[in-house]
Amino acid sequence: MRPMTSLGPNAALIGQPGSRHALDTPALLVDVDALERNIAAMAAFARAAGVGLRPHAKTHKSARIAALQVAAGALGACCVTLGEAEVLAQAGIAGLHITSPQVTPSKIARLTALNATASGLSVVVDHPDNLAALDRAAAAAGKPLAVLVDFSAGHGRTGCADEAALMALARAAVAAEALVFRGIQSYSGNLQHVPVRAERRARALAELDRLGAMVRRLRDRGVEVPIVSGAGTGTFDLDPEARVFTELQAGSYVFMDVDYLRALRDGRNVPPFETALFVATSVVSVNQPGYVTCDAGLKSFATDGPLPEVAAGAPPGSRYEFFGDEHGRLVLPPGASKPPLGTQVECMTPHCDPTVNLHDRYHLMRGDTLVDIWPVDARGKR
Amino acid sequence: MRPMTSLGPNAALIGQPGSRHALDTPALLVDVDALERNIAAMAAFARAAGVGLRPHAKTHKSARIAALQVAAGALGACCVTLGEAEVLAQAGIAGLHITSPQVTPSKIARLTALNATASGLSVVVDHPDNLAALDRAAAAAGKPLAVLVDFSAGHGRTGCADEAALMALARAAVAAEALVFRGIQSYSGNLQHVPVRAERRARALAELDRLGAMVRRLRDRGVEVPIVSGAGTGTFDLDPEARVFTELQAGSYVFMDVDYLRALRDGRNVPPFETALFVATSVVSVNQPGYVTCDAGLKSFATDGPLPEVAAGAPPGSRYEFFGDEHGRLVLPPGASKPPLGTQVECMTPHCDPTVNLHDRYHLMRGDTLVDIWPVDARGKR
Repeated sequence: MRPMTSLGPNAALIGQPGSRHALDTPALLVDVDALERNIAAMAAFARAAGVGLRPHAKTHKSARIAALQVAAGALGACCVTLGEAEVLAQAGIAGLHITSPQVTPSKIARLTALNATASGLSVVVDHPDNLAALDRAAAAAGKPLAVLVDFSAGHGRTGCADEAALMALARAAVAAEALVFRGIQSYSGNLQHVPVRAERRARALAELDRLGAMVRRLRDRGVEVPIVSGAGTGTFDLDPEARVFTELQAGSYVFMDVDYLRALRDGRNVPPFETALFVATSVVSVNQPGYVTCDAGLKSFATDGPLPEVAAGAPPGSRYEFFGDEHGRLVLPPGASKPPLGTQVECMTPHCDPTVNLHDRYHLMRGDTLVDIWPVDARGKR
Repeated sequence: MRPMTSLGPNAALIGQPGSRHALDTPALLVDVDALERNIAAMAAFARAAGVGLRPHAKTHKSARIAALQVAAGALGACCVTLGEAEVLAQAGIAGLHITSPQVTPSKIARLTALNATASGLSVVVDHPDNLAALDRAAAAAGKPLAVLVDFSAGHGRTGCADEAALMALARAAVAAEALVFRGIQSYSGNLQHVPVRAERRARALAELDRLGAMVRRLRDRGVEVPIVSGAGTGTFDLDPEARVFTELQAGSYVFMDVDYLRALRDGRNVPPFETALFVATSVVSVNQPGYVTCDAGLKSFATDGPLPEVAAGAPPGSRYEFFGDEHGRLVLPPGASKPPLGTQVECMTPHCDPTVNLHDRYHLMRGDTLVDIWPVDARGKR
């Protein structure tokens, strides 16, 4: 039994019908029915496409949501930070893959400690010096460490910059004493948010043609490449056409957000996933013409993407704008009457991953009822 | 004794000379000498100007930093959220003022509970319905609640929109059974970041002329107005010229950031406060020409302001850009040699308040030595 205080000021509302509209705000909400449908839809897609799924946990940072994904067939979870992997491993999630290079002595020591107990752990490597350091640490710890060699894929954030570097690093990984070469990661982060689906598809497939050829040449040289990992929510159903990836890393599909909904709506009648994540906010000041002030600001929403979009509780056509750390401006359409003081408004989140990272807990909703409160376990963990 | 785990992965470095350059990153750093000088400089300014100081704790969310400010003469601390006030009161900070209206039943119940034990608590009110609700709650709880009537001050986020509303609400507060009218709050949030000092001064003083006249008329009607509260780091030394505020709410001066340094540099030889807050990040990928990738991204820096500015560890002229949730791009000046993998770089933060809110702990530095680790106590508390 968790202590009630860890559940925050809404703990007493759990199980009460209508509690969705009586929350202490701002509060991060998850529509559990939509979440479950999103998890099932992606699992069904991956099964049908014959590709594995190791969803990115940087989106939700939640051991319970990772467990739901694994129960639906996921191979494990991807983590961008070592801290995320530590938290999920502690909660019993196996098959964790760390998608970002771990290079400093402190991170390598923590990684080796995690590898001693975690089942099915892997990490990317993109530089011979880092590969050598990982090899030494794994050898000293007496347990082999699985690595994927990272390719930069036109995104250029991390990864080998060209085929020669990729080949050399893959062969060095195979040759290393205490490393196990598990395969290749190639993440086209630059393509996930391309708004036009046809353009996203063309660029993704061109990138995968190049990657596929490199993987073939690596296999031709006798290197086994069991895993080729990549893709995000923006290209999850485009990338598998190329038959290069053995597993997908998409993460945001569990929740969706304003940005991904726009991209995934393009070229379809119905987006493949539903919005499952909202921030609930309350009207706290109503003294100005044309707008009211709410209690969710730039400490409740990520500010790197579009603005939040009003989903419920306000007149149709209302707009939400940031108005400082803890406030937002709900701009009303002409002629609309002002929502009274205390009115609860729900917004779709601009960019789900960094929005989740601002909150300590998820408020789980079935319809209008708060059914549970879950911690954002790995919030802020690096 | 706090458990070591709550101090994070850098706990073992405390007290080690040179530890500043061997951190597990990303990490939020405070230069304690600069912090202490900033706290002393603002305290000295307020004493000399004959004005009180109740610094805004939304910047640091730290009971220990609030205690340092009180020890230097501050009247207490301002809080924007009730959750911040709960945390600081629990830690023994008296004289807390909540600068944002608390209007929902949940918040009013928590506020009343806090008022039962907190010493010198006050809260703003900007609407007759909220005033009546606060009065009923305080009466039911059997302890008077101190209120400041909030004025919108051309910012329009919260507060009464005009003098008539302000007068009516002040008189209603005086007449209320269980409320104590403590005075007026007027926060010109729209002026704090005006980049040109002369313009900032002219607009601040014009706003305070208007406010001063209203306060005089209120006093002429026999209403005692012991407190007139406002100002921020952008106008802390301009507002007191008008002799309207009895206390200042500035907060960001303890740390400073890229945005405030620009504003406060204008029209002076030396800015009145020093940068005391940094994010330390490590180079994790070096495979691209012209830049390297570091491990601090938009989950480590606020993204609502300017970009972070490189302060140490990189060639002069290097630029820092966001490169996803957990990564940044350190763009090197032409001809500069690349910092090797694992190099630690420090950046000034773009906007200090929401940057702090992304981190769980402060790493306190004296010179090159990590001397302590403090929690960001009220991080995420609403």
